[in-house]
Amino acid sequence: MRVSPSADIDGVSLASRYQATRAFTEQLAAPLSAEDCLVQSMPDVSPTRWHLAHTTWFFETFVLKEDPAYQVFDASYEFLFNSYYNSLGTPFPRSQRGLISRPGLDEIHRYRRHVDQRVLQHLHSNARQDARLARIVELGLQHEQQHQELLLTDIKHVLSCNPLQPIYRPGTFAVGDAVDRPARRELGEGIEWIGHDGTGFCFDNEMPRHRVFLEAFQISDELVTCGDFLQFIADDGYRRPELWLSLGWQTAAEQQWQAPLYWHREGDQWSQFTLAGPRQVDPSLPVCHVSYFEADAFARWAGARLPTEAEWEVASRDSPPGVGFADTILAAEQAIHPGSMAAHRPSPRSMFGDVWQWTASPYTPYPGYVAPDGALGEYNGKFMCNQYVLRGGSCGSSSSHLRPTYRNFFPPEARWQFSGIRLCR
Amino acid sequence: MRVSPSADIDGVSLASRYQATRAFTEQLAAPLSAEDCLVQSMPDVSPTRWHLAHTTWFFETFVLKEDPAYQVFDASYEFLFNSYYNSLGTPFPRSQRGLISRPGLDEIHRYRRHVDQRVLQHLHSNARQDARLARIVELGLQHEQQHQELLLTDIKHVLSCNPLQPIYRPGTFAVGDAVDRPARRELGEGIEWIGHDGTGFCFDNEMPRHRVFLEAFQISDELVTCGDFLQFIADDGYRRPELWLSLGWQTAAEQQWQAPLYWHREGDQWSQFTLAGPRQVDPSLPVCHVSYFEADAFARWAGARLPTEAEWEVASRDSPPGVGFADTILAAEQAIHPGSMAAHRPSPRSMFGDVWQWTASPYTPYPGYVAPDGALGEYNGKFMCNQYVLRGGSCGSSSSHLRPTYRNFFPPEARWQFSGIRLCR
Amino acid sequence: MRVSPSADIDGVSLASRYQATRAFTEQLAAPLSAEDCLVQSMPDVSPTRWHLAHTTWFFETFVLKEDPAYQVFDASYEFLFNSYYNSLGTPFPRSQRGLISRPGLDEIHRYRRHVDQRVLQHLHSNARQDARLARIVELGLQHEQQHQELLLTDIKHVLSCNPLQPIYRPGTFAVGDAVDRPARRELGEGIEWIGHDGTGFCFDNEMPRHRVFLEAFQISDELVTCGDFLQFIADDGYRRPELWLSLGWQTAAEQQWQAPLYWHREGDQWSQFTLAGPRQVDPSLPVCHVSYFEADAFARWAGARLPTEAEWEVASRDSPPGVGFADTILAAEQAIHPGSMAAHRPSPRSMFGDVWQWTASPYTPYPGYVAPDGALGEYNGKFMCNQYVLRGGSCGSSSSHLRPTYRNFFPPEARWQFSGIRLCR
Amino acid sequence: MRVSPSADIDGVSLASRYQATRAFTEQLAAPLSAEDCLVQSMPDVSPTRWHLAHTTWFFETFVLKEDPAYQVFDASYEFLFNSYYNSLGTPFPRSQRGLISRPGLDEIHRYRRHVDQRVLQHLHSNARQDARLARIVELGLQHEQQHQELLLTDIKHVLSCNPLQPIYRPGTFAVGDAVDRPARRELGEGIEWIGHDGTGFCFDNEMPRHRVFLEAFQISDELVTCGDFLQFIADDGYRRPELWLSLGWQTAAEQQWQAPLYWHREGDQWSQFTLAGPRQVDPSLPVCHVSYFEADAFARWAGARLPTEAEWEVASRDSPPGVGFADTILAAEQAIHPGSMAAHRPSPRSMFGDVWQWTASPYTPYPGYVAPDGALGEYNGKFMCNQYVLRGGSCGSSSSHLRPTYRNFFPPEARWQFSGIRLCR
Repeated sequence: MRVSPSADIDGVSLASRYQATRAFTEQLAAPLSAEDCLVQSMPDVSPTRWHLAHTTWFFETFVLKEDPAYQVFDASYEFLFNSYYNSLGTPFPRSQRGLISRPGLDEIHRYRRHVDQRVLQHLHSNARQDARLARIVELGLQHEQQHQELLLTDIKHVLSCNPLQPIYRPGTFAVGDAVDRPARRELGEGIEWIGHDGTGFCFDNEMPRHRVFLEAFQISDELVTCGDFLQFIADDGYRRPELWLSLGWQTAAEQQWQAPLYWHREGDQWSQFTLAGPRQVDPSLPVCHVSYFEADAFARWAGARLPTEAEWEVASRDSPPGVGFADTILAAEQAIHPGSMAAHRPSPRSMFGDVWQWTASPYTPYPGYVAPDGALGEYNGKFMCNQYVLRGGSCGSSSSHLRPTYRNFFPPEARWQFSGIRLCR
Repeated sequence: MRVSPSADIDGVSLASRYQATRAFTEQLAAPLSAEDCLVQSMPDVSPTRWHLAHTTWFFETFVLKEDPAYQVFDASYEFLFNSYYNSLGTPFPRSQRGLISRPGLDEIHRYRRHVDQRVLQHLHSNARQDARLARIVELGLQHEQQHQELLLTDIKHVLSCNPLQPIYRPGTFAVGDAVDRPARRELGEGIEWIGHDGTGFCFDNEMPRHRVFLEAFQISDELVTCGDFLQFIADDGYRRPELWLSLGWQTAAEQQWQAPLYWHREGDQWSQFTLAGPRQVDPSLPVCHVSYFEADAFARWAGARLPTEAEWEVASRDSPPGVGFADTILAAEQAIHPGSMAAHRPSPRSMFGDVWQWTASPYTPYPGYVAPDGALGEYNGKFMCNQYVLRGGSCGSSSSHLRPTYRNFFPPEARWQFSGIRLCR
Repeated sequence: MRVSPSADIDGVSLASRYQATRAFTEQLAAPLSAEDCLVQSMPDVSPTRWHLAHTTWFFETFVLKEDPAYQVFDASYEFLFNSYYNSLGTPFPRSQRGLISRPGLDEIHRYRRHVDQRVLQHLHSNARQDARLARIVELGLQHEQQHQELLLTDIKHVLSCNPLQPIYRPGTFAVGDAVDRPARRELGEGIEWIGHDGTGFCFDNEMPRHRVFLEAFQISDELVTCGDFLQFIADDGYRRPELWLSLGWQTAAEQQWQAPLYWHREGDQWSQFTLAGPRQVDPSLPVCHVSYFEADAFARWAGARLPTEAEWEVASRDSPPGVGFADTILAAEQAIHPGSMAAHRPSPRSMFGDVWQWTASPYTPYPGYVAPDGALGEYNGKFMCNQYVLRGGSCGSSSSHLRPTYRNFFPPEARWQFSGIRLCR
Repeated sequence: MRVSPSADIDGVSLASRYQATRAFTEQLAAPLSAEDCLVQSMPDVSPTRWHLAHTTWFFETFVLKEDPAYQVFDASYEFLFNSYYNSLGTPFPRSQRGLISRPGLDEIHRYRRHVDQRVLQHLHSNARQDARLARIVELGLQHEQQHQELLLTDIKHVLSCNPLQPIYRPGTFAVGDAVDRPARRELGEGIEWIGHDGTGFCFDNEMPRHRVFLEAFQISDELVTCGDFLQFIADDGYRRPELWLSLGWQTAAEQQWQAPLYWHREGDQWSQFTLAGPRQVDPSLPVCHVSYFEADAFARWAGARLPTEAEWEVASRDSPPGVGFADTILAAEQAIHPGSMAAHRPSPRSMFGDVWQWTASPYTPYPGYVAPDGALGEYNGKFMCNQYVLRGGSCGSSSSHLRPTYRNFFPPEARWQFSGIRLCR
């Protein structure tokens, strides 16, 4: 991971961010029983307990083990809680994470406390002198925030498999606005710089900053809503091959898609499973849990297209900050669901928050990109194949985690993330 | 389930057996955490919590719900904890039992207490007058004993998937005897009656009692030992197709079998995973966790064959009772492992206990067999295809559960049961 | 293969049977193009060309290569056309037989002529002196007759995959009789000898002759008809789990069975694909292309059961010979289809011909069975697992190939053979 | 398909190109038997006969059926030989093309002659007046050239599955040059126009012509050779995860890749299957039959990278025409194999011919791309997902088929095309 140099590395404030970030993970896991924390409902999903342990393993491996005198908490964890860092040894198979009932959840919390204590000690004693380690702590916090979002999307999938439809955490939903025809903004052609300029933290995949040539384009101020998507369904959107990519058509047939993930038709109505329990689909809220294939087919049906990531980034530069983020939502005691903060949203509208927005851009290295050396070089670069970039953050993200250059990425068939649609022309 | 009429149905003694049997299930689950109880390591395995709930569901469904005034504990359990009774509605998919983290283990224990209280009430009040329900309680207890054994074999598989190799329950192993060449008994040709005569409890598949013609045969007094099996391995038993059934050869290649399940070669030594933790393979103990295919190939290699179930049953009639059963073992504080009671075993040797013994007999209905009416008719008959009969009981069975006519059955590729080998000629 | 000693081995008559049998194979292949002969429509199916070559390989391998001076026709054929004889080297993978376009069909016919010439030479010169080889030639002819039937069932499956529904060979269908309620015969209880007595040819799996004890039973004089089976379908037979074995229910769901193989509903009518092209289902003809699972479910629905193979064999002893065999049918210029010879059939009815009849007996070794030494020992014994015995021969069999002790066998899910149903009680 | 307007559409010259192109397809199929032409060795491969029929179907469907009076040759072919045009009805399943033995090859040739006669008639009579149809004929010829290449790569895969290793067509191999360190060219940064300008034929995916910003880069004058690749293998290139994309590492493990497709190690030597039979690997020839994953891993190992398609296109503008094309090779009686024309190649070297060159660019629509209306709109656009662009043409392409803006595309795991590597920095 090439972490850009940062002027403000300061052991004390980093320690307080460390404590806050780690505590937020535990806050997210708090409503869950030890059993909830163990379930892996599909290979892409990781158990909550695994997120709790793996993020800790990250600090232990990349921060604490730098000190040759450090004694590992448990040698077997080096293998059990490695995700995909082949240079640190063959990881435990991803699809079997749900089979490992021991160490128990209590033990994993002990592991967290053990590591937290030592990392904090380190930050207080010598971070000022050790900028490199401070940067890795920063990376670990950003990594933990990524897993906080996965914890939410994964547990949503887990609980959705249970016929009892358990509630993760109660919360209220805002009433959405009446939906006018969305306004669009128009941007002119020209050379634009995109990517991160190296001030403050970024992931290696956001660099180098570089020039791209963009044609003029229009981008919508609004997300596509459930109401819009219901029209697509009603217009046989899932049954018209001419709207779909060939691979999408095949995937939709195999997996029998007829609506976004978690939607169920009940007579004339559509209901959906949410982290706050089952609910009717609200036409005014942003559509969510659609794949790239569905986003692309919807755009074609609507006579539009998805923006490229460069278009999205350029358009987002003067966007106000969003409110549809996990930390903001919890503070407001709303439901963790796209659009639940509708009543609080700024004007003009933000391009950030509520749902990740599929872009038309496959996830590729920026010109001149070189992955960092060593195990942290496996963080991003090796996944640059058969995935698409998503932008903007969601109701599962922390507000402090996002920035205009942030590149999220998932395979085009993925639906369990908080992924939605913004149109472009 | 056709439960044969039984003279000794007596509410009081049945109630005490009910309490003892139900308590034994909980004793078996006691060493496990809530998380251990949730894991399903392969589709054939059920989580411990599922065994605890399903056995309770059995009593609720077939005993308590006979009373129209009975209020079910939770309506969703009728679906969640049905195993395979299609006539009671489509059961929850077997392969997803490990995904259901709620109800939690505590709640399942409450469910058990709720049902226990009402069943006991029923037994004390009117069992004498209600022979039919008493017979179903009897069936429920036998059913629970079957699940006690599955609980043990399933959790062994679950724990074996954990690289930490957790111990289910510590226990000592007897030192096995020096092994002499095993004695054989010889039985002459003739018509024999096999199957259950209807005195006391039996499962429907043990009936009707009927005649078979048997040629003269010899049957070994001893089980095949790990030492015997090590010779088979050393003689390239796993690499010589001429010893194997075609389907077995194919299965062994696909699953890369090179030894019984749970065995691992470490240099020159063989170790194995047991319910009391990892241990060296002891050549004097009975070999276990072999499939029918391996049992059959071993017998061919040894110049012998497996007995038919009729031969086994006839030979077992004057066998003394065994000691290698779960309840006996726990009482003696030994390990739940075949042969752990070697020091206590009777002379002459018993054909019962330690390991189930694969017979050469596919599992078929006895002449004149008709499955009972209703849901209980799904108990045995519908599984009579592509399975083989095993006889004798194992270190996972309760001693009170076995009898000479008892027919256990598993597919020929199954290895996670306590299944071993007795030779015949 | 233990071929029983035979009094009448005589080189000259064997040579003439050799010529006739080999010529019949070529007669069966004659309506097919080189391309037809190459297709493998599923792993269980072999291309026609493979049958032509493999049967020739059998004579080359087991007869000609006994002579150390013999030069093989092509060394690569030893590998390409070995079916499953592991003791002769790893065979070419079965599922890839359809990928091998060379040698071409012409070349395979040259191979046949090459081998035929030398086998005949051998038979004329020294068969009288070499009883062992003559017995292997006999075995090779029986083997070829088995492949003649497979050639027919395989090409039927191949052609059925072609939307053009090609005709293998035109032929007329007899008009079936009006169906009365079928008569049944009743046989009393007692010890019966079954299996082959060693006079004339038999396969090793028909021996040793041995005693079984049978209860009294009734067996139908008639095969189950398409009309009977249409009633089963109309009575929701494919949708009632209580009629099915558990494994059958699962298989039927996965493969979406709603009728016998090759049947298609068109509005109110049922049509079927036959070797003489598409045809309406005729209610008076025997039902065919049903699996064991369907046969068993039908019997349960009808309040009856399938006979065991011992019952079938005992009942068949005084049956007149049948007429529904491939050679008889071709001579009469009828269609190769069950019941096409209805007009010619004897009275009383024969138990032989038209369709193989599923028995309730898993395919197991007879008491005392030992597979022959060497490669021919792989002929039968190693398949004795997860298959059921069928009896009686079919419209795809040669009339000279059958006898009361003949044991055919297929897995319970197989449907592409000419397999039908006879009921028992 | 948006075919760009073309000044030179002239019925007579188009007719002569039609005849030449159609004849070349038949020349390519000439060395094959009817049986060779039927085999489908994996789902991605189509039988030769299918290529012969489908290209004819294309002309029948899009040219002849424009005339309402036209009678189709055989109505079933509309379904059988449709590839993937959903708007013309559900196509026959791709993976079953090898099961259809009828119509026979002779009949397919009759179909070709039937359609050829009518298309030519049309071209001679009214092409001048009917520019639109002439353009579709042009498209049909380009389409046929694409299938000519697939015919070669598909039959290579088919024949490679045969242990007899049949020769498709004999041919000599040039002796390669001694390999010096390859020269590179350097190109400066700036805005470049890429894509087709609409003069002459192009596919819709080459348009619109548009601007991109490129950083300065260096590109090699030479293809990566087998000798270079042998060094990668020798340096454990297939066993070092840090060189690979994550999905490539997983694919390589599952498919057990240890060298390019068709390579086999024999002791110390590497041999390979070619269309002219088995041959030793010649270190001086271009490496071929590598996936994108291998190309990318090789580049990383070499401290370089793959060019983007824009870089490749810009660099190719002043490249001389190549000689390593199928038609040139056949005229010179060389083997159809990369580098077989080494003795004839121009100086300076061409970027065209011998092997398609993987670029780092996922296959995406150019800015402003809109797929044509109707069935021809399914030609390209719907495949723009999870594929990579290849540039340059190969020894399987016709020389008249290529141009600098040509975009070929395959999934990153594809290896059976003539795909190789050119490095960039």
